[in-house]
Amino acid sequence: MNEFDYIDKYFRPLTNEFALNLKNDAAIINQKSSFDLIISTDSLVEGIHFFGNEDPADIAKKSLRVNLSDMAAMGAKPLFYNLSLSVPKVKASQFIPKFVKGLQDDQKMFDIKLIGGDLTSSLKHINITITIFGRSSRGKSIPRDGAKIGDCLYVSGILGLSKIGLDNYNSNFKEFQEAKRKYLLPQPRVDLGISLKNIANSMIDISDGLVQDATHLAKNSELTVEINLSKIPLPNINKIDKKLLLDSALYGGDDYELLFSCDPFYENKLVKLSSKMNLKLTKIGIFKKFNKKFLKFKNDNSNPKNSYLHF
Amino acid sequence: MNEFDYIDKYFRPLTNEFALNLKNDAAIINQKSSFDLIISTDSLVEGIHFFGNEDPADIAKKSLRVNLSDMAAMGAKPLFYNLSLSVPKVKASQFIPKFVKGLQDDQKMFDIKLIGGDLTSSLKHINITITIFGRSSRGKSIPRDGAKIGDCLYVSGILGLSKIGLDNYNSNFKEFQEAKRKYLLPQPRVDLGISLKNIANSMIDISDGLVQDATHLAKNSELTVEINLSKIPLPNINKIDKKLLLDSALYGGDDYELLFSCDPFYENKLVKLSSKMNLKLTKIGIFKKFNKKFLKFKNDNSNPKNSYLHF
Repeated sequence: MNEFDYIDKYFRPLTNEFALNLKNDAAIINQKSSFDLIISTDSLVEGIHFFGNEDPADIAKKSLRVNLSDMAAMGAKPLFYNLSLSVPKVKASQFIPKFVKGLQDDQKMFDIKLIGGDLTSSLKHINITITIFGRSSRGKSIPRDGAKIGDCLYVSGILGLSKIGLDNYNSNFKEFQEAKRKYLLPQPRVDLGISLKNIANSMIDISDGLVQDATHLAKNSELTVEINLSKIPLPNINKIDKKLLLDSALYGGDDYELLFSCDPFYENKLVKLSSKMNLKLTKIGIFKKFNKKFLKFKNDNSNPKNSYLHF
Repeated sequence: MNEFDYIDKYFRPLTNEFALNLKNDAAIINQKSSFDLIISTDSLVEGIHFFGNEDPADIAKKSLRVNLSDMAAMGAKPLFYNLSLSVPKVKASQFIPKFVKGLQDDQKMFDIKLIGGDLTSSLKHINITITIFGRSSRGKSIPRDGAKIGDCLYVSGILGLSKIGLDNYNSNFKEFQEAKRKYLLPQPRVDLGISLKNIANSMIDISDGLVQDATHLAKNSELTVEINLSKIPLPNINKIDKKLLLDSALYGGDDYELLFSCDPFYENKLVKLSSKMNLKLTKIGIFKKFNKKFLKFKNDNSNPKNSYLHF
């Protein structure tokens, strides 16, 4: 099969009307002036973001989900996506059908469709780049720079699980199954993101560890965020000591939980939302006037470390 | 420098207001209901689409230009683009500044800006994925499936030069300089594409050789296109025999000329347009009722060969 056969057989069935059956050089989107179009791109690179020996369906889902998580962080409703896939020639016939099955499943789960992209070979490693498109009412998406003095810092779910899953990827211990699952298949908090539209005034998804992403919010809002380490929601894994769990939460990547600031006024609303969505929402810090550092730990003078950096 | 430093120093200056200073998870586009948004993605992969030892500025320009060419093929005006760049750690500090300089130059030349993207490391090879956005008046972009029986097939510029440049990439002969330049830096026919909006009824840019791309037009329009081999505009290179020149035009890639169908009624208009734009526009074939094959050569029963296929 050549690339046109793959596109015909596997990718065309994933598309919506904007893709024009993948027969054009481009997709055509009917713009709606009452909405903003929200656009984000994330790449997953073999050897950097994934090992390469995972089920291709899981790799596909993770590629979509990290992008869906970016839509969640904007409070946007995901609509459709563009995919560029580069695969070594020798892997294509095994990889593509399973990869497409993963896309198909998650397209249903998250109600999105493919609108176009590019399929090429590569010499050695797989590279997946997805550009995702979402919408929000004009001017209503949630920025990264809207936190105010006195705002609370909230986080969804629990943190650090994904890093534990990655560190114990080759372990067969039952205790690590949930963590490994979370590492392989994060849950983008799309519904939560949309529900926070009139509550959160700044938001980010935690892809690089709590410290790095909380620093982004504080820096963009030109404030200091003070995090209460004892409040951080950690996983319950007996095999691992608390210190390592906390470190995974602070500096580990791939959690894809939402981190947001809001006025303390919304505390009760968030309690109700948490129970309605059956999803933990935890107040872990507070925003203060900028003082020397963008991020501090409450009652703890230790200096935050760096999270994963590509370069 | 880590990825945030690179983004701050090199990529932020390339952006427009939609990028929100690259401080958000996504770009926000104000939609305009009188326009369609045209979206296309092309990747350039080291070892497949480029050698890797080219000037990074030229690699940047080619990445943009192959995408601009997709906008040209739709008759769309390019507006902005999204970039995902994966670079091995050891190459980043040398590659990124020069690559960005290339983007900067071509942003000016083609009046487009960066709105977002992703910057990651990779293990071995560079991967560049650009998603480009353009606009055309609602319902006015040029499809691939609009050719009618009796329509003429036209092509811009000359064909095959890029393939000659690639084949003689390591030659220092003066005769190949123009060809090598065309291979490294194609000229996307953006202005021509827009000018053809009320003339061409189907169009494609030639990225995979005349035969493959003319077949796309015929197949999508469910017709047979008959190409007159003696009319194909070939480069004038004495060192290379006519047979090889013709082969390069038919099956060589990377020409990025526009190939389009139109009613013979527009013949005079195209003569004037050609002279106004100082760009050759040549009638090389005709569309007929479908008969056995999508593409035939006039007075020549030889079977077309395959162009480059990734898989």
